[in-house]
Amino acid sequence: MSFAKLLESLPIPILQAPMAGASFDAMAVAVSEAGAMGSLAAAGVAPDEMGAVIDAIRARTDAPFGVNLLMAPPARPEPAEVGTALARLTRWYAELGLEVPDHPNRFSQDFDAQLQALTRAAPPVASFSFAILTKAQVDALHAAGSYVVGTANTVAEAKAWAEVGADGICAQGFEAGGHHAYFLEGIEASSVGTMALVATVLQAVDVPVIAAGGIMDGRGVAAALALGASAVQMGSAFLLADEAINGATWQKALREAPDDATRLTRAFSGRYARGLENRFVREMAAVQEEVPAYPVQNRLSQAMRAAADKAGDPEMMSLWAGQAVTLARPGAAGEMVKLWWAQAQETARALARRTGATEPR
Amino acid sequence: MSFAKLLESLPIPILQAPMAGASFDAMAVAVSEAGAMGSLAAAGVAPDEMGAVIDAIRARTDAPFGVNLLMAPPARPEPAEVGTALARLTRWYAELGLEVPDHPNRFSQDFDAQLQALTRAAPPVASFSFAILTKAQVDALHAAGSYVVGTANTVAEAKAWAEVGADGICAQGFEAGGHHAYFLEGIEASSVGTMALVATVLQAVDVPVIAAGGIMDGRGVAAALALGASAVQMGSAFLLADEAINGATWQKALREAPDDATRLTRAFSGRYARGLENRFVREMAAVQEEVPAYPVQNRLSQAMRAAADKAGDPEMMSLWAGQAVTLARPGAAGEMVKLWWAQAQETARALARRTGATEPR
Repeated sequence: MSFAKLLESLPIPILQAPMAGASFDAMAVAVSEAGAMGSLAAAGVAPDEMGAVIDAIRARTDAPFGVNLLMAPPARPEPAEVGTALARLTRWYAELGLEVPDHPNRFSQDFDAQLQALTRAAPPVASFSFAILTKAQVDALHAAGSYVVGTANTVAEAKAWAEVGADGICAQGFEAGGHHAYFLEGIEASSVGTMALVATVLQAVDVPVIAAGGIMDGRGVAAALALGASAVQMGSAFLLADEAINGATWQKALREAPDDATRLTRAFSGRYARGLENRFVREMAAVQEEVPAYPVQNRLSQAMRAAADKAGDPEMMSLWAGQAVTLARPGAAGEMVKLWWAQAQETARALARRTGATEPR
Repeated sequence: MSFAKLLESLPIPILQAPMAGASFDAMAVAVSEAGAMGSLAAAGVAPDEMGAVIDAIRARTDAPFGVNLLMAPPARPEPAEVGTALARLTRWYAELGLEVPDHPNRFSQDFDAQLQALTRAAPPVASFSFAILTKAQVDALHAAGSYVVGTANTVAEAKAWAEVGADGICAQGFEAGGHHAYFLEGIEASSVGTMALVATVLQAVDVPVIAAGGIMDGRGVAAALALGASAVQMGSAFLLADEAINGATWQKALREAPDDATRLTRAFSGRYARGLENRFVREMAAVQEEVPAYPVQNRLSQAMRAAADKAGDPEMMSLWAGQAVTLARPGAAGEMVKLWWAQAQETARALARRTGATEPR
């Protein structure tokens, strides 16, 4: 079966976005069991736990699911760089009553080891963000029985993924919440709205395109399918789901978010990501280009974000959210995807009436 | 008749975007005659010519059309500011063999006088960008018999237009080519992708929403209608039309545009606008925030852009274009809108099949 056929065979062509820190196995299982496709955000999973985590999902659903890795480069920063970055965070840690943390020995999981473990575990779909696999790595995943999806912010990135043999492209538009996946150019050259990105990526590659960014309900699903996407990926729409693990402070901030509330920021992690604007985002904006690249800054701010969360202070947390997050609603993830698909069907009927497409030709 | 009814009554719910420098009366007439709605870009029309220009369109089509004004603030810059700005342009003018122009006496048409003339001429639809009318100005347009459309880049701007009585909102997303219409906040806070902007504006206002930004063909039209827009506005899709007046150099650059080729720049005009990246955009990027605000910089760079156009040099011209401009095709504007509508109908049929919406319920 081709990846296109797998997407066509889904009762509901909606992929749940892997959201590290906001979703884990329960959401993936619930979404896949409902007929859409869940995704495990596996960036934080240690290589020697990868197989067990993936097998545990397989034990809870016969439906296809995805596993996502973030391709962080091996980080071996100079102590001076770490010291400078921690000094910049001292006042924020102090506000929370904390000393800055010690210099970490490790900044993220070992990607190569994660990839080996993932390949052995062979989930139905393996997706990747922040960089690109080699053709040999894609071939190994194929040999193991996994489809490969590459995340692209630009047409050039989509073409690059198609060239190494990816089975599908997740076209992540400017609207998307959380980290943006750009890897060929900087953020400015990699900021393309979903409407334009999906249309231009479809023009450029022959593999299925999954539309992501700003899709929050069945009208968005129908719109993305109308553009020509084979499926959609939704993340922010699940941030108030029962299975979300982003916690009360983040969720309260989402429910109370004002209009036009998100910004792209590099200050939390060293890679541009979209979230609700708060005091940390505002006050760090001037120096955000100077913080160490992902995953270093991400690791250095981790204890600050965790402590702020524990203290119920949304002003020092990364409140990842997409540009249409005010449309997020609470509920069970499985019920949500069924509702969105019913809305998409109703939208399709309304569109047929509006365009006169249902009249005899 | 309400504005919603007017949009519903259009045989083709596509509005041609008013593009100063790229479209004028011929395109507006062709599009309206084909069953969609043309728009006159009237920013450069002198107040005492406004009535005649609008009457000439009315004489050539019985169908509704729009007229757009750019709300430039009265510019009375200090001579020193103009001198500094011209000094910054000296090397560019020199490359073209020109002296920098004299200090202009006037930087744009007088907006208040234009608005009075427009109100007297009473076109079916009057649309505005770059700022917001007062309720009294909207009331006067209504009394004259015109519908009023306000252009918004954010939800807050859409609400503001609804509050002064606008009949519809043109929601202009981040993807859009040419000048962006933001007026409440700066460009960063006003950059919202079309997919998210349309969905969130619809949630916030009760008037019809016209989707703009990244829509290049019938699939885009269908997608925007699926999102809930009452109509779409397309600009870049007309840039290679027979009726376009943007000239051979601009059009050649569009036909040869590489992937992911556009950038937002403030360097040409003093207001952020999207176009193909060229040498002027790149080399002026570092000082773009320092150039005088629109319309001053726009006026000061005018002779440079015109001379570059005449010389066939695309590197010093404002090559306005949206993010999906590689989908632009040549043709007669009237035939284009008919083709896009046929594509939208076919898309609606395919979407009904894909979602199972055509099966018995």
